Amino acid sequence: MRAGVALLSEKGFSATGLEQILQQVGVPKGSFYHYFTSKNEFGLAIIDAYADYFAKRLDRAFVHTNLSPLSRIKFFMDDARAGMARFDFRRGCVVGNLGQEMGSLPNIFQEQLHGVLLDWQRRTALVFAEAQSVGELDARHNCESLAAFFWIGWEGVVLRAKLERSPDPIDIFSETFMALLTR
Amino acid sequence: MRAGVALLSEKGFSATGLEQILQQVGVPKGSFYHYFTSKNEFGLAIIDAYADYFAKRLDRAFVHTNLSPLSRIKFFMDDARAGMARFDFRRGCVVGNLGQEMGSLPNIFQEQLHGVLLDWQRRTALVFAEAQSVGELDARHNCESLAAFFWIGWEGVVLRAKLERSPDPIDIFSETFMALLTR
Repeated sequence: MRAGVALLSEKGFSATGLEQILQQVGVPKGSFYHYFTSKNEFGLAIIDAYADYFAKRLDRAFVHTNLSPLSRIKFFMDDARAGMARFDFRRGCVVGNLGQEMGSLPNIFQEQLHGVLLDWQRRTALVFAEAQSVGELDARHNCESLAAFFWIGWEGVVLRAKLERSPDPIDIFSETFMALLTR
Repeated sequence: MRAGVALLSEKGFSATGLEQILQQVGVPKGSFYHYFTSKNEFGLAIIDAYADYFAKRLDRAFVHTNLSPLSRIKFFMDDARAGMARFDFRRGCVVGNLGQEMGSLPNIFQEQLHGVLLDWQRRTALVFAEAQSVGELDARHNCESLAAFFWIGWEGVVLRAKLERSPDPIDIFSETFMALLTR
């Protein structure tokens, strides 16, 4: 599973061969098919595992913290930047990669990927609502729309940082987004 | 070339077989290799063709128009929405698709894709600067950063609209972006 997450965050689903994953971890094909009926089932399990991992990461940034609400959003972006830097901006987001590949994936992936994004948005909307309640964010903002806007844009950020192999897109997005929220 | 653009905007590069493209247009492999030495060379030519097509589209929205500057940005988003709707939100952006696939593409694609995005940003920054000069946009905004922010986010929009097979992400991004600029 870990090897699958790593390869899917780097290359996506279509470009990653099952053989490549199994070779890397020294697991024979027969053993794989004991646990999964197909590469697709494996892909769906990887999305689940990634969603669990990411939920913990969001909790660390958004819940278990003394930061002000808007600083938590900033912290998440800085943390993601550090995470991408660790892999030389070669690994992106499993959900974004597979989302981009929907044209060649079975429809069952769609619902699962969308569900994960809606969960992230829900968590983020709570932070924006808290920012409003402490006066950090203007009350005119619609927190749900703002959270959706953030995640729609954020998948673009990860894509672009991978494309450029550079933190620059993360920095530009982060600075501009915070400026737009607080000016 | 047209069949290639269509398939690459829908499925990306890795998931699109050369045979599939050639079969669709009834071109034998030998004829293909008369014009291109490899699938990679064909891919780079497709990016060029897509960039030309898209530059005309941006000129239509940004230059050949009587709209106010910020209305041109809105027009571009509405126009892109209509374009995606025409293909049932199955086709996205060739540049975004291939950008997402950088992990499995040769490095030569990186420079070309990045160059196209910088061109789009340059054109967009001019519109924001004009918006400032007519008082539609606050002078505190950095037009280059804002244009980069827009294109970083916009590739996320296209990805998400494809994932959801729906215009909703375009609408949320468009409305929220215009609200953030003008409130």
